[in-house]
Amino acid sequence: MLAFECDYLEGAHERILQRLVETNYDKAPGYSSDQYCASAIEKIRQACKCPEAEVYFLVGGTQTNAIVIDAILQKYEGVIAAETGHVNVHEAGAIEHSGHKVMTIPSHCGKIDAAELAAYLEGFWNDPSHEHMVFPGMVYISYPTEYGTLYSKKELEEIRQVCQKYEIPLYMDGARLGYGLMSKECDLTLPVMAELCDVFYIGGTKVGALCGEAVVFTKKNMPKHFVTMVKQKGAMLAKGRLLGIQFDTLFTNNLYFEISAHAINMAEKLKAGFKERGYSFYLDSPTNQQFIILSNEEIEQLKDKVSFEFWGPIDEGHQIVRFATSWATREEDIDALMMILDENKKFG
Amino acid sequence: MLAFECDYLEGAHERILQRLVETNYDKAPGYSSDQYCASAIEKIRQACKCPEAEVYFLVGGTQTNAIVIDAILQKYEGVIAAETGHVNVHEAGAIEHSGHKVMTIPSHCGKIDAAELAAYLEGFWNDPSHEHMVFPGMVYISYPTEYGTLYSKKELEEIRQVCQKYEIPLYMDGARLGYGLMSKECDLTLPVMAELCDVFYIGGTKVGALCGEAVVFTKKNMPKHFVTMVKQKGAMLAKGRLLGIQFDTLFTNNLYFEISAHAINMAEKLKAGFKERGYSFYLDSPTNQQFIILSNEEIEQLKDKVSFEFWGPIDEGHQIVRFATSWATREEDIDALMMILDENKKFG
Amino acid sequence: MLAFECDYLEGAHERILQRLVETNYDKAPGYSSDQYCASAIEKIRQACKCPEAEVYFLVGGTQTNAIVIDAILQKYEGVIAAETGHVNVHEAGAIEHSGHKVMTIPSHCGKIDAAELAAYLEGFWNDPSHEHMVFPGMVYISYPTEYGTLYSKKELEEIRQVCQKYEIPLYMDGARLGYGLMSKECDLTLPVMAELCDVFYIGGTKVGALCGEAVVFTKKNMPKHFVTMVKQKGAMLAKGRLLGIQFDTLFTNNLYFEISAHAINMAEKLKAGFKERGYSFYLDSPTNQQFIILSNEEIEQLKDKVSFEFWGPIDEGHQIVRFATSWATREEDIDALMMILDENKKFG
Amino acid sequence: MLAFECDYLEGAHERILQRLVETNYDKAPGYSSDQYCASAIEKIRQACKCPEAEVYFLVGGTQTNAIVIDAILQKYEGVIAAETGHVNVHEAGAIEHSGHKVMTIPSHCGKIDAAELAAYLEGFWNDPSHEHMVFPGMVYISYPTEYGTLYSKKELEEIRQVCQKYEIPLYMDGARLGYGLMSKECDLTLPVMAELCDVFYIGGTKVGALCGEAVVFTKKNMPKHFVTMVKQKGAMLAKGRLLGIQFDTLFTNNLYFEISAHAINMAEKLKAGFKERGYSFYLDSPTNQQFIILSNEEIEQLKDKVSFEFWGPIDEGHQIVRFATSWATREEDIDALMMILDENKKFG
Repeated sequence: MLAFECDYLEGAHERILQRLVETNYDKAPGYSSDQYCASAIEKIRQACKCPEAEVYFLVGGTQTNAIVIDAILQKYEGVIAAETGHVNVHEAGAIEHSGHKVMTIPSHCGKIDAAELAAYLEGFWNDPSHEHMVFPGMVYISYPTEYGTLYSKKELEEIRQVCQKYEIPLYMDGARLGYGLMSKECDLTLPVMAELCDVFYIGGTKVGALCGEAVVFTKKNMPKHFVTMVKQKGAMLAKGRLLGIQFDTLFTNNLYFEISAHAINMAEKLKAGFKERGYSFYLDSPTNQQFIILSNEEIEQLKDKVSFEFWGPIDEGHQIVRFATSWATREEDIDALMMILDENKKFG
Repeated sequence: MLAFECDYLEGAHERILQRLVETNYDKAPGYSSDQYCASAIEKIRQACKCPEAEVYFLVGGTQTNAIVIDAILQKYEGVIAAETGHVNVHEAGAIEHSGHKVMTIPSHCGKIDAAELAAYLEGFWNDPSHEHMVFPGMVYISYPTEYGTLYSKKELEEIRQVCQKYEIPLYMDGARLGYGLMSKECDLTLPVMAELCDVFYIGGTKVGALCGEAVVFTKKNMPKHFVTMVKQKGAMLAKGRLLGIQFDTLFTNNLYFEISAHAINMAEKLKAGFKERGYSFYLDSPTNQQFIILSNEEIEQLKDKVSFEFWGPIDEGHQIVRFATSWATREEDIDALMMILDENKKFG
Repeated sequence: MLAFECDYLEGAHERILQRLVETNYDKAPGYSSDQYCASAIEKIRQACKCPEAEVYFLVGGTQTNAIVIDAILQKYEGVIAAETGHVNVHEAGAIEHSGHKVMTIPSHCGKIDAAELAAYLEGFWNDPSHEHMVFPGMVYISYPTEYGTLYSKKELEEIRQVCQKYEIPLYMDGARLGYGLMSKECDLTLPVMAELCDVFYIGGTKVGALCGEAVVFTKKNMPKHFVTMVKQKGAMLAKGRLLGIQFDTLFTNNLYFEISAHAINMAEKLKAGFKERGYSFYLDSPTNQQFIILSNEEIEQLKDKVSFEFWGPIDEGHQIVRFATSWATREEDIDALMMILDENKKFG
Repeated sequence: MLAFECDYLEGAHERILQRLVETNYDKAPGYSSDQYCASAIEKIRQACKCPEAEVYFLVGGTQTNAIVIDAILQKYEGVIAAETGHVNVHEAGAIEHSGHKVMTIPSHCGKIDAAELAAYLEGFWNDPSHEHMVFPGMVYISYPTEYGTLYSKKELEEIRQVCQKYEIPLYMDGARLGYGLMSKECDLTLPVMAELCDVFYIGGTKVGALCGEAVVFTKKNMPKHFVTMVKQKGAMLAKGRLLGIQFDTLFTNNLYFEISAHAINMAEKLKAGFKERGYSFYLDSPTNQQFIILSNEEIEQLKDKVSFEFWGPIDEGHQIVRFATSWATREEDIDALMMILDENKKFG
């Protein structure tokens, strides 16, 4: 069975495992005050060309979103996101659970539009009853988006300008950041992100780690007593070393970028293979998630040999399905998938 | 200055004040365990033809929505509402503050559509990742809606059927319930509402009371220890008599319905007056709130003599404004308004 | 039946009712932006000799505590209170419901001790793991306390000094503030309170109003967007006039102080009466609540003729009971109570 | 530098690391629906002799306490704990953050007393105003306690009886469960715990794992949609395999118990060593945490060669300090510690 349903099917990059073994009996203080975290923080600062960045390691993406957003927002504020934003759809209401509204604006293949954002904010401030409404306190975007799409540098700069005009921070969810940065279409870099975002996170779970996300506050804006709020949310690891070692490894010798590039190469190959065979795409994704339209018959033929994720029906006879590659995807598996497609066409 | 901006400009119906004076030195136990509350509850049960109804008095509308919704929802559930629903727009995030998402579906002049509701619910349950999403746990509607519109009996029955199919309660916000029930277009009655809704509230603040809303649980479904949750939310009045006396008076000798009918008569007169004079309406409201489109010039001419509420721009030269009548609206004020409109036209 | 169980048995002082009637048809804007609130705020500022005080009217005591405390605390902070504090015992967990811990220190007849408070705070800041603990963010005291006792000016000054040293605000719950200020033992005044407290509230519900508490922020420290947080908690009255008119009346011609003084006079008479007849007191209260120890037999004899509140057993044969007076207590009822006591003694 | 300050200084038991390496490229579905979790759950059920147990893996202790307690409690309920309970002191208010009060009763060397618990519960239900109070909805105990002490089987049975009488669940925090079970003084077993507790967790982080705690619901009482609440709290791991593999390894060939026994042996040796040398203990702990009283001079002499944790001052000249052993403690380090003590005595 070939598996392409997501980008978290395997464990961790082997250099990470190796490093966990090597350091295993070193004694380290708890709660992320260890030497590995310190080293990882320094490397991330350098990668971001942001020496004053404050970096904190958390375990997973929903946790990170929930903590960062709640820690930054005032009690009367909510967060603006695309309707399709992960925080609005697939986090079981984690943001609302912390007392904050997710205020949605339209999604354009997963992205928000700077002009629509500006109109929303202007509308709020011009509304004579806005004191009876949730105050917009932050803008949430994801990079790549939930649909694998990317903001251009220009788009991101425009969003930042709107945020600055209305004095609210810009937060970027980088669960798959590596796969965005290594895309052929990416015209952004980590330092540019650090400049344009007030806070963002570098996803580890989907990019080679067992678990872990690195939150980067870029403007000396880590909320006061952030660590206590992390503890209060049950998100502090006793053995913070687990996160420090992983990110230290990922940011040593370019590993994070190399393995991300591999995933992108695999995705390009997969995309080209589907394209050559005449398949339609739900949208044009330049990253590791590919959304393909399959007929119900094609799904029937495939599903016993290949696993992929169902994204929803597009009409009675067709569905959108997602194929994802990752740092761990093997080229021979893409080849095998293409052979299956060919066979199915032949005998279908 | 004539004032039509809302339906809470005056104090209370004079019979209520009179009754507050008469009972003032009677000693009554606290926290709504008094004789007035008991009498009011009995009268509301009779008006609803629902002898087993559980009735609880709260102070205001946002408070009532926040408490009822939080008390009924499980921790992993949210409430479905129209995009324009009061809980979604003008309650400063009170629902999210209690940890629950407001899950929106389209608004049709303030109303939700049973078929769209069913599609939303079916979509949720069919979604393979619904365990990562907020569970729909309740449907919220308002009657009249925030736009003054009304559900027909048939529409309400269809919504109820969807709720029953998906086993979630139907909650009706009746902040202006009297003005809905007394509308010429209303084909519903309190007993029918008690049958079709799992819980609803009878608005007092906007219909003759100083403050107060009567929550009616119709299916022996008042949540366990509801009173403690009311206290926990800071919503319990020490002198619950204030609410009991008011509702007891409103439900004596048909007062609630009589004063609601007066407001509707005044609204009809106002609506006819604007219509005769060629004004456009944003939508056709059969209740006490009328949404009229005025040009910026018309607004300039009116605003020093008449107060009304701005509802938002419709284009560069026009705005939607709201004129509201209430139990306290005087017919001579409608006449005076029409004279002002005529004068403005003449000299405009 | 004579009734002494609490201080909220009757409606409102008749001047308040009269004023509600007089102003009933005046049109006033909603949400406390009316002329009555403005006037009441000005009078309270004058009474406090604190012209820059920010005053906001809320409906009840638990609501006020929950809102003020949550609005002031940071998300990682809790509030320090006496173990017997109302916020710790009888508010159904309203503070915790808003996410904050009530951190208790010992109660001395309802009061906290400045030295114990200082030790608690010093202990927190010296604790090497205090980042894993709730930060103390506010001190809550009540005046009079839940046991009717009073802080002396010196005691309050000492508490304030501790608060200043540790840079946390001092909040005073004045649900029965009038009954404290008019006590023979009181050496404080409203202006002194305004100086020593960062925020406090002047209780109306128990001192002549139908409902209502006036929150006074004394140091230009009303939290940003406080009004939106009030709305978010469901605590904003559409007809804010109801609160404004009441407080405007209470602070006209010294009414608040006069009716408070009456309650104290009645309490003194009741206290003297019990004392003369040889009853023991649980503690020495100089305000309107008197805590008396009755044997089970005495309770049996009394309870069909007089109502009072049970405060808990003191030993197998005795209970603490509370007798409360108020602005509405009639002298003849105290006389009647004494006659019943005498009769019971005679025939007991 | 010798290190004894806590039991989470090293990484993981090497069999765990080895198993992570071996399984690394196996593809596994996300969110704990993988084969390793399934296997670990089955092994835990067998170890508990509780075939119907529902087991869920979470990442850390505070997270586990916060999620289990919030998922079980009704909105109007709080959790009873010893004043010294971890949930009351060192979780930064995580329980209150989820809206629930921690209701404290006295601590006896970390333990609660069944009779005091019963008195507390009886007091609540007998209190005429208990509807205005937080309802006790659960009892929290830790085993071993935060002071290393253990409940006897008889004590635990008595607590269970009280819980059953008042119909509230008993929850046991087993962050260091292995070190309790392997203590010479323990007369409990996992199956007995599964019988006496409604829910408990088996701590991994402090007993050989990199991270992870296994929650065991023993009475088919896992709250409905528990998984969604885990997601809502940001506690769901995409790669749940990380937890499954660790617990599967710990519960293979008795590893969990063997490594716990080693920690206890080391603790016994350390305890005996301090005792022989005439040191006083703050209390008598039969588990892996030892609380020793050191003079300020002794601390000065030790602290450059040995690390330990400060637990608080006992008088001006002395402090309580904690020495902890773990699965990873080396016997030679105990020997080295004793030599340092001897040297210090000699030259002290």
